[in-house]
Formats: sequence, structure tokens, C-alpha cells
Amino acid sequence: MAKKTVKPEVLGGFIDILPREAIAQNALFSMISEAYEAFGFVPLDTPSMERVEVLTGGDDDFDKSIFVAKIVRGAEDRGSSDDFGEGESFGLRFDLTVPLARAFSAHSNDLPRPFKRYQIGKVFRGERQQKGRFREFYQCDFDIVGSDSTMADVEVIQVMEGVMTKLGFTEFVIRFNSRNILNGLAEVLGCGERSNEVFRIIDKLDKIGLDGVVTELQRKPDNEWDESALALSEEQADKVKAFLAIKPGDNDRTMSELKDFFKGQAGVCQKGIAELAYMIETLRAIGVDESHWSLDLSVARGLGYYTGPVFETVLTDKPELGSVFSGGRFDGLTNRFIPDSNIPAVGASVGLSRLMVAMKEKGLLPEKDNVTDVLVTVFPSAGQELLSAKTAKAIRDNGFNVELYYGQDNSLRAQFSYAAKRGIPYAVVIGPDEAKEGKLQLKDMNARNQEVLTMAEAIAKLKGSLGK
Amino acid sequence: MAKKTVKPEVLGGFIDILPREAIAQNALFSMISEAYEAFGFVPLDTPSMERVEVLTGGDDDFDKSIFVAKIVRGAEDRGSSDDFGEGESFGLRFDLTVPLARAFSAHSNDLPRPFKRYQIGKVFRGERQQKGRFREFYQCDFDIVGSDSTMADVEVIQVMEGVMTKLGFTEFVIRFNSRNILNGLAEVLGCGERSNEVFRIIDKLDKIGLDGVVTELQRKPDNEWDESALALSEEQADKVKAFLAIKPGDNDRTMSELKDFFKGQAGVCQKGIAELAYMIETLRAIGVDESHWSLDLSVARGLGYYTGPVFETVLTDKPELGSVFSGGRFDGLTNRFIPDSNIPAVGASVGLSRLMVAMKEKGLLPEKDNVTDVLVTVFPSAGQELLSAKTAKAIRDNGFNVELYYGQDNSLRAQFSYAAKRGIPYAVVIGPDEAKEGKLQLKDMNARNQEVLTMAEAIAKLKGSLGK
Repeated sequence: MAKKTVKPEVLGGFIDILPREAIAQNALFSMISEAYEAFGFVPLDTPSMERVEVLTGGDDDFDKSIFVAKIVRGAEDRGSSDDFGEGESFGLRFDLTVPLARAFSAHSNDLPRPFKRYQIGKVFRGERQQKGRFREFYQCDFDIVGSDSTMADVEVIQVMEGVMTKLGFTEFVIRFNSRNILNGLAEVLGCGERSNEVFRIIDKLDKIGLDGVVTELQRKPDNEWDESALALSEEQADKVKAFLAIKPGDNDRTMSELKDFFKGQAGVCQKGIAELAYMIETLRAIGVDESHWSLDLSVARGLGYYTGPVFETVLTDKPELGSVFSGGRFDGLTNRFIPDSNIPAVGASVGLSRLMVAMKEKGLLPEKDNVTDVLVTVFPSAGQELLSAKTAKAIRDNGFNVELYYGQDNSLRAQFSYAAKRGIPYAVVIGPDEAKEGKLQLKDMNARNQEVLTMAEAIAKLKGSLGK
Repeated sequence: MAKKTVKPEVLGGFIDILPREAIAQNALFSMISEAYEAFGFVPLDTPSMERVEVLTGGDDDFDKSIFVAKIVRGAEDRGSSDDFGEGESFGLRFDLTVPLARAFSAHSNDLPRPFKRYQIGKVFRGERQQKGRFREFYQCDFDIVGSDSTMADVEVIQVMEGVMTKLGFTEFVIRFNSRNILNGLAEVLGCGERSNEVFRIIDKLDKIGLDGVVTELQRKPDNEWDESALALSEEQADKVKAFLAIKPGDNDRTMSELKDFFKGQAGVCQKGIAELAYMIETLRAIGVDESHWSLDLSVARGLGYYTGPVFETVLTDKPELGSVFSGGRFDGLTNRFIPDSNIPAVGASVGLSRLMVAMKEKGLLPEKDNVTDVLVTVFPSAGQELLSAKTAKAIRDNGFNVELYYGQDNSLRAQFSYAAKRGIPYAVVIGPDEAKEGKLQLKDMNARNQEVLTMAEAIAKLKGSLGK
């Protein structure tokens, strides 16, 4: 039967995560999970696919980065409109926030309030491909659903600080602001109804500088359909300049300049000032290292849906990476599913690929192809295999990761080369002499020396050296 | 803008894994990973979707449980035939073995031999739905690729034993056999070319009993197109009965009866006998508890592709669950991608849903809605919140998972009820009296008693009680 030969290729934009990368990724996920759990966040696991309207909100003109697919072959549709069978459409989740909103809406009677959940999972997006961007990638989110307390916003900063510290970073700052401040600015400018355009432009400050921001804010429409042009006046532009002249650094000075800027102004800006003042007071009272957080009025976050405090995290020694951990408050999470429910929520999401780049450069992630502590070689003379297998079990039973060699080339040279190539730190040899004495030879692959030891001595040495 | 209200429903056959279940699942995954890593297996992470022909082998008449879908909306196709964009078809992975074969074929120069990998991931299948069976579910596989050594088969049994023991099971047996023995039987019966039919029927022994198996083996075709009927003669049926009369129990007796059955017979059965004899000898030499493994000639495993030893795991106190951990040797893993490469492979896959049922019944998995050790309450009088937040941080910094209460009802009763309902073992109260003394009240939620302690005393008590 002549069968077709299939190319061993992945779909365009997808990748295999090989062991070296997967070991690092697992280490990262496990540290992040622990940091989230330290604050009582619990895991939630939602499907990879959702009903199309769950993702699009029933809006036909949805974002083109959302993948919608139709089943063309597979299980038969059993008639129900939401069945997953032939002819049925489905959407690939593009983030973990919409699935959270759906799951919280569906199970709200069974879930506590506040509901503090984290989720680590793959999402799918059709964004323009570029280096390091794929059609399928992981997100690691945590969110607090059902609390409008500013203490929850403070906790988000604490969690972000906890994650960054757990990952081994010291040089970072969590910059925060509040949408209420930015909405207050839009009110001052007299363009409250177009505030999202204002935020979108201010969000570019790091990239295009103050002059760029002012130019863009003053840009006049190219034609009558150009709705993105704000055409701010000179006077309005001066107000933006004065606002952005309030620099971060000393939080008390920033706060005092902020109060001055809005002096005499009522409304939403005062809500923002009260929020930020409480956050600063609380972070200090709790004792969160003040070098790790900073009130920064230039933080806007592009996304339209934030409604309160917004957060981003910059590595102070690598600011060019941009934010590695961002989020904010978005009240109204579940309104798509339960109209007017206005459930408050606040959370953040790790910028995984940027963070991994930084961690690798700093040596904060394991870079190894294996998890093996000891390779037990098989002496290439008849009858040694069983003794080696028994020895491997004995060392493994003491809590070490142990491989028994059973590759095809059974020369000792090939076995040592296998250990060296894979970065396995220790090899064990049991030749006829050692076997006679009931001992083993423990070879330190890095130091390139060996000792003949009893099993108990070898275990003690491994414990000391590998810290297990 | 009147927006459509969307039902917060999942696709048919999909489920949300809520925290209680997700906490148990994470604990299970982490124990399984550790048990795999103890033998030097490394993680591999492949895409959720594959090119259609990767999954089907280019065979148009593929299994209907494989889902094939076409992108109807999303990123534009950029012209390449394998791009993931509008109009392109893709398949949802239905197991983790085909992706392993593809990834090993693609990266074979970068991967060691043997390549020992594990993967925990979601797979998708359109099987008939029944209780506890879903369209999307997890698999946890481990495989050794590139070794034809019978020591690798022995190691698979050791890994399975290691996982079961790590999970807390004591009453289980890994039953094994070899396809070479079954092929030998088919040769004795003179129906070697239809051996897969023979195995399929023998595999039903547990369900339909010996009489059922014999009846089915002797069944005559209903019509000329009935190819599944073997129509064995009385004499052939007697041979099967004699074969299946060799019962498991005493491995030496089973082996000696097996040798007698095939006495004078050359060929593949002798290869099988040598394999099984080596496995028994080695498992004994290594010291793997003999109550946990058993040569059992009735083990056939339905799947056609096994080519050597086959394994299944039965809980001896819950045999009705069937096998909870199964696998076998399947040489020729990569032939779909690299013709005639004949790469040998052996591995097994956890029957996750069955295993979870058993573990829950035995209390081997956490059954809790939270991961929190301590709830720090906020005393309902002005100004206590910051002190509580500071206390929460101090306890958390000692390695505990700590929640600060910020629910809407701030009465102490509501706060204790929140802790009790979620099964949080300890609550901390700092009232004005405790605050004045610089102490805190630690309430044991289970014992329903409380003590006023210094922070150091509280940490010592928590460490002792929670074992952290």
C-alpha cells in the first residue's frame, strides 16, 4: 500500500515548543502560579473555543484578529444550535478575559464575591505576524471580580510586585494612573465625548515624545470623514502640555502637582485624585517597596474598556521592552451577558514573551535541555545492565531525577558524551571493580573528576551539591 | 446603543473547569509531571491545531472523531498553502502521539536519541458523547522515542508504577503482554493476516467472558460482505481457550505455561517469550514491587498500531473502571513523515477522567474551592484597613497564601462566613485591643477557637499546623 508521505510541518504562525523552551516556560508558569496563589487567587480553566457571539458580542463587524472557523468534517451535528459538529461555527478564544466574563456570568451563583481567579492558557490571534508573535500563544491573567474597593486595585499592584519579585527582578517599576484622571483632563479640554482618542494619543508619549503628542492632538481633519483628528486649539494643547509636565518620580510631588492642576475643578478628576491618594497611602502603609511603584500620569493604556486605575510595568534597566505586565479596572465585565449587571473587575496580564526575553538575558530562567540529575551508565560488558538499572532506581528513590542509559552505542565514551551534550551534571559508572566492592563511581561532569563511593556517600554528595 | 445580550454558554460538549476541579487537576498534573521527570522525561509543547494531512496521514477516509475546520473569518491568508488565515483548513489534534511523531520528524537533528518526552495538553474528539466524555479533554502522555531496547519497555512499567505510587495508589496492577505473543497465537491459528481482528475480540475478555470471546471468534459471516467474522473452527477455538486458560497470578507459572503452549513453535512467539522473560527478570532485579505488575496474556489493547509489549493498569479494588493507564510499543512512529524510518517508540497515556474518579473516591486529591491558608479580616471600624493589609503582607511574606478581606458586607460575621464557606482554615482579627497591644487574634476555623498572639507566635503556630 503506497501511502502518501506527509511533510512534518506546523500550520503557518504556529510553533513547537521544544524541551529547552518548555522547561523554562514550565518554571515560569509555576512561579507565576505560586505568586498568584499567595494572594488567594484560584485557577479557572475554560475551553479553547467559544461560541462565536461570546467572543464578538454579536457584533458582525468584529475585530479581524478573532479567528472564526466552521467544522467541515468530524462528529455529526446533533441538531442543537450550539453543538460542536459538522457545519457548526466556533471562535478561537483571543484572550482570557472574555471567557472569564462568560464563565462568571454562567456560574455566578456558585462563585464567591469577590472571585479571585487566575488562568494560564493558550489564545489565538490573527495579528500581523512579526518576530516573536505567533497565531497561538500563552496568556497568564489574574483578575478580581466583584469588588469595587480601591483596596482591590492596591492588591493588583501588590500581586504584580509579588510576581516580578518571585521571578527574580529587582529593577522594575509598576507605573499607575487612573482613567478618572484622564477623563478629568478630557473634561478640562472640553472633549469628554472623544476622550478615548485623547488617551490613545497620550499613550504614545514614550514612543513619539511630547512634541509628537501635541502635534497629533492638534492635527486637523484631512477630509470630512477623518474622525480621528481632534484639532485641539493652542490653548487646549497648552493644557495637555501642563498636564504631561507633571513628571513621575517623587510620588508626593506628583500628587501635589496633580491636585494643583485640577484645583477648583469638580467631578470625575476628584474621584481619580482620591483613588490615587488612597493607593499611595495604602501601598506605603503595607510596606510595598516604593522603588517598585510610581504614580505616572502619562500611563493611559490604549484599550477603551478601562474605567479606573490602570497599571503597567517597566523594567528600569530595559525600558525599550515596553510594559511587561499590564492591566487595569474594567467595571462592567459581564454586561455583554447580563445587561446592566455592572460587575466591577480589576486585574492584569503578564506580557509573557517580553518577560521571557528579559529573564533569559538576566539568567533568571533555566536554560537546559533536560531535568536529569544523574545518568546511570551501563558498563559495556555482559551482565552489568541489571545492576545499573537497580542503582538508578535506588538513587531515584532518594528524590533525584535519574536516567538509565539505553542508547544504541553502548561505549562509555558515547554514554559520557550523551550526558555532557544534554548538560546532565552527574554520571554514575559501575564497572566490575565497583560491583565487586558494592560501590559506584560518581563522575562530576562539570568538574570532570570522579570518586568511588558507597551508595550512602553518593546520595549525601548529590544532596549537598544539587540542594535536594 | 442597544446591544444584543449574549447567552453565557459554552459550545456543546465543552466545559468550564471551575476552581474546585481546577485545583485538583493542577495537583494531579504536577504529581504526574514530577513522576515523569524523575525518569528524565522532558516536556514538549505542540500546537493545538495541525495541518489536516498531519492528522489524517493524507487518507481521505479518516476517522470521524477527528475534527477538521475551515477558517471563515479572521486574519487574511497570505498565500502560502499552510498559512493560518481565511479559507484555510486545519485539524484539531485528537491525541498527543501524532504531534509527537510530527515534531520528532521535524526536529530530529536537534533532539537526542532516545528522546524521552512528556506532554500534558488538551485534545479534541468527536466521539459519541456520554457521561464524563467531552469534545475537549486533557491527555498526559510519556514516550521514549528511538530505543528498541527492551529495557525501555521495562522503564515504561517503572514509570507507570512511579506515577501510580506518587498519586497515592497502593492497590493496582500493571498488566502486560506482548503483541509478539498474540501474533504467535494468530500464526498457530493460521489466521496471521487477520490478527488484528483476533486481538480486538480477545481484548473484550473482561467484558464478555471466555464464552463470549469463543462465540465471537467462531461467528460465521452474516453475508458475503461481512469481513469481521473470523469463523474459527472448533479446533482453532480450542487453541484460543487453551491460550486464555493461562491465567495471570504467579508470573513464573504463567511464563512456564506460555512456553509450553508454544513448545516447538518457532518465529515471532519466541521473540515475545524472550521479551517477556527479560522484562520479568529485570523488574525483579530492579526491585519493582511484584504485586504491582503481572504478565497477563489476555491483555491485547484494541489499537492496531502496537508492535511489541502492551501495558494496562487496573485498580485491583476498582476493576470495573477498566484500565487507568495504558500504552505499548509502536515501532514505526514517524513512517508517515519519513518513509521507512522505522523509529522505535514505546510509551503510555494516563486515563485521566477515570483516574480522577478513583482518586476522589479515595480522597487522594484536594477537594477545596481555595488555596488560601489565612483570611485577614478587616475590623469594621474606621482606620483598621491599613493595619489589616499590612498584617496580611507580613504573614504572606512568611510563605503562606493570604487573602485580605474586601468584600462588600464588612461585618465580622460576613467575613467569618466567607472564610468558612470557602474552607479557609485560619482567620485573623485585629480589633482595637489587639492593635493597641501589637498583637493579633488567630482563629482556627475548624476547631472554632481563637488565641491572641504576637506575629511571631502566630507564624510559628501556622507553620506547625499547615506544615509549611
